[in-house]
Amino acid sequence: MSEEDNREWETETEAPAAEAGVHSDIYAEDGSVRHDFLASLGAAIADRDTLWLHDHIVSLHESELGDVLESINTPQRRALVRLLGDQFDFAALTEVDEAIRLEIVDGLPNEKIAEALGELDSDDAVYILEDLDEEDQQEILARLPFTERVRLRRALDYPEDTAGRRMQTEFVAVPPFWTVGQTIDYMRDDEDLPGSFSQIFVIDPTFKLVGSVNLDRILRTKRQTKIEEIMDEPRSPITAEMDQEEAAQIFEQYDLLSAAVVDDNNRLVGVLTIDDVVDVIHEEADEDIKRLAGVGDEELSDSVIATVRSRVVWLLVNLCTALLSSTVISLFDATIAQMVALAVLMPVVASMGGNAGTQTMTVTVRALATRDLDIYNAGRIIRREATVGLINGLIFSVLIGTVAAIWFANPGLGGVIATAMVVNMLAAALAGILLPLLLDKFGADPAIASAVFVTMVTDVIGFFAFLGLASMWLV
Amino acid sequence: MSEEDNREWETETEAPAAEAGVHSDIYAEDGSVRHDFLASLGAAIADRDTLWLHDHIVSLHESELGDVLESINTPQRRALVRLLGDQFDFAALTEVDEAIRLEIVDGLPNEKIAEALGELDSDDAVYILEDLDEEDQQEILARLPFTERVRLRRALDYPEDTAGRRMQTEFVAVPPFWTVGQTIDYMRDDEDLPGSFSQIFVIDPTFKLVGSVNLDRILRTKRQTKIEEIMDEPRSPITAEMDQEEAAQIFEQYDLLSAAVVDDNNRLVGVLTIDDVVDVIHEEADEDIKRLAGVGDEELSDSVIATVRSRVVWLLVNLCTALLSSTVISLFDATIAQMVALAVLMPVVASMGGNAGTQTMTVTVRALATRDLDIYNAGRIIRREATVGLINGLIFSVLIGTVAAIWFANPGLGGVIATAMVVNMLAAALAGILLPLLLDKFGADPAIASAVFVTMVTDVIGFFAFLGLASMWLV
Repeated sequence: MSEEDNREWETETEAPAAEAGVHSDIYAEDGSVRHDFLASLGAAIADRDTLWLHDHIVSLHESELGDVLESINTPQRRALVRLLGDQFDFAALTEVDEAIRLEIVDGLPNEKIAEALGELDSDDAVYILEDLDEEDQQEILARLPFTERVRLRRALDYPEDTAGRRMQTEFVAVPPFWTVGQTIDYMRDDEDLPGSFSQIFVIDPTFKLVGSVNLDRILRTKRQTKIEEIMDEPRSPITAEMDQEEAAQIFEQYDLLSAAVVDDNNRLVGVLTIDDVVDVIHEEADEDIKRLAGVGDEELSDSVIATVRSRVVWLLVNLCTALLSSTVISLFDATIAQMVALAVLMPVVASMGGNAGTQTMTVTVRALATRDLDIYNAGRIIRREATVGLINGLIFSVLIGTVAAIWFANPGLGGVIATAMVVNMLAAALAGILLPLLLDKFGADPAIASAVFVTMVTDVIGFFAFLGLASMWLV
Repeated sequence: MSEEDNREWETETEAPAAEAGVHSDIYAEDGSVRHDFLASLGAAIADRDTLWLHDHIVSLHESELGDVLESINTPQRRALVRLLGDQFDFAALTEVDEAIRLEIVDGLPNEKIAEALGELDSDDAVYILEDLDEEDQQEILARLPFTERVRLRRALDYPEDTAGRRMQTEFVAVPPFWTVGQTIDYMRDDEDLPGSFSQIFVIDPTFKLVGSVNLDRILRTKRQTKIEEIMDEPRSPITAEMDQEEAAQIFEQYDLLSAAVVDDNNRLVGVLTIDDVVDVIHEEADEDIKRLAGVGDEELSDSVIATVRSRVVWLLVNLCTALLSSTVISLFDATIAQMVALAVLMPVVASMGGNAGTQTMTVTVRALATRDLDIYNAGRIIRREATVGLINGLIFSVLIGTVAAIWFANPGLGGVIATAMVVNMLAAALAGILLPLLLDKFGADPAIASAVFVTMVTDVIGFFAFLGLASMWLV
């Protein structure tokens, strides 16, 4: 509305104090839950003060309650859930660590869980159900009303990490020949709508998806207009079996807020929403970071044994490449015996190459992941990296050459390490960009194996150049 | 609607073929634009075949057009933009590399650009404007209608990386005393609504924000209900000066699709939408990954000089820590001179420690970034990491001990390297978790400096343990 309209207003509404938000109430500056809030909560739990809990806990957003649950200890958590009873918001369980979720769920009778899950959106219910053991899962499902049970079973039947597992099975679907007016009236009367939605779907009599309409489109269209006149035709369809990362890419490409999920016969089975996609994007970035460091799909709540297992493979690969470097060094043992300074300085050459290579590799792996790097610009980027490697090599060859010449009072040694440094920094740049590109070309994830191979290249070339030149020029 | 309703439908709509989507039309399996499509496009450009372009290019989604623009060469791009004329979708410029965006914009007269920007949502217009040089920016702004100009100027006045710079200044705002019916009628009649929206805002006569209503809420509410009865009160307010990362965290915590942006006086100035937040999340993850590798805020399109500058600092720090390791080695030069096998094997101890330390550190840094790690569970996680380090240390001490004993026919050497390996792997685990925690405690970004310091610790301890034990036990 325009500023003119405002002047006609009669009621002067009170400005909402910015500090009135619940958010600022429970969080300290650093984003953790405030200590005095936790102290009051602890006292309220100890005193079984349900009135305080009702005033301060029940009104929290599910993610705030999740943070609170993570900030108190096990006996407090148990007592809190018990004291809240039916007022405990089960959606908060989707916001906590797996360990805490299982602890809370295990402490409740299956009957209570079934009742609570019935109130949740299906994607939240599936999120909580999927971690339970088979027996509990079946017992809880059996206690749910028929429609709910069928919906959850269907979602649980899709493999983990698919769109079908993440989707919500509540949605609004109307036939194409309905008018905007009919559709609005239908939504006003139907009590059984999803918790919130930004789009409705258009289906044919066999439940096949024929289009979708964003809510703003409905609101700005005259009542008598038919839905089929304003609906968008389905673009890239998201199938229930589709990997969640692929679905996330479609969301990002088309800036979607929600999208229909269809089965093999193009029948509408659910809706995927952007908040799930945001979680997927986080998981994906996490995966990239962890793979670059040679850590598997590790969670903070993993056991010692699981953690050892996730890391031992890459350490083993690293042991092999380190022994390869040792073999290179052993070729020059006679040279080292004559000049121990070489043993003192050789880790410098290797370490600088390793670091420079890791820098280039990280940029390359990320550019490949975000599709910024492709065959159209690869040539240009390779040339740029080589130039950068050369320039950095020259800068550091001057530095280390001077240091070495002075330290060991041996200008020849300075010259050798300076030359080896240029060679290794150039090799590092080329390995850092070519190895990920090669892995990508052959369909491997460039993140998973690059680090260890790049360091292998820079170690081997670094030791070989430094010790080789020394054996020719110095000894 | 229920399955019963479906049976009454009379029209049998055709099922949309899944392959009819535009998406599958232009993309190959690997996500790049199909070669035959690019060939046809090249031919159409050469033949000035505007009919083909109209059929195949104008209907593309802005992100698809962006991908196409990135896949053709500079002369083709220029010709394509010229041939499309007014039908060129400027929103596609928000989907391409900065270099390509500038190339296209520089090839167009400012008058044309002003005209095109006037059609875009303000956040897209700002995105394109902010990279132009001051002079062009002012000339283009001067050619825009007054309201547009004021809006864009205001957004451009907020610093980069703030919510104000990212926000869209088109939104729907109504007074609290309007009814749902009035609001719907207003949206039907107003031509000047934003491109798409999922929420409307409620403001008082001074434009202060008093609440918001999601569109689905409006659609399911009776016409005579007043907006103030169904509005949500503002939770954590997002101010225009707020850093975009902070705003993104609020979106994630409360699963928002859009949120009001207010100025210092709590007056509504714009709206931030989830698609911008998704971009922020990507940038943030990117930043973490790059900092872990010691690369600055680097873009693929950066020049050689900018790239050298972004990397040289950490290489310099690494040179200093590498020289520190050299100093440790030089303490034992007499020992090495007597037994060159030590020089051959010492990089193995350091490299294994460095890798194990990086693994722990990466998990720690990510857990801190996602707030999974805090004072409540730090003790438990430190104990777990130490145990994992010890177990991995024992596994690899047996392996490397055996290899060394056999290789150099020296069981004593095997014993020394085995002991050093356990010591260093334990040190690596402790450094990997304690250094990031310490940096975080003192308000530094744990990602930025951890890698180099963790490797410093593992190098120094590795060399010291291995060479120190050797000098005591072997020589």
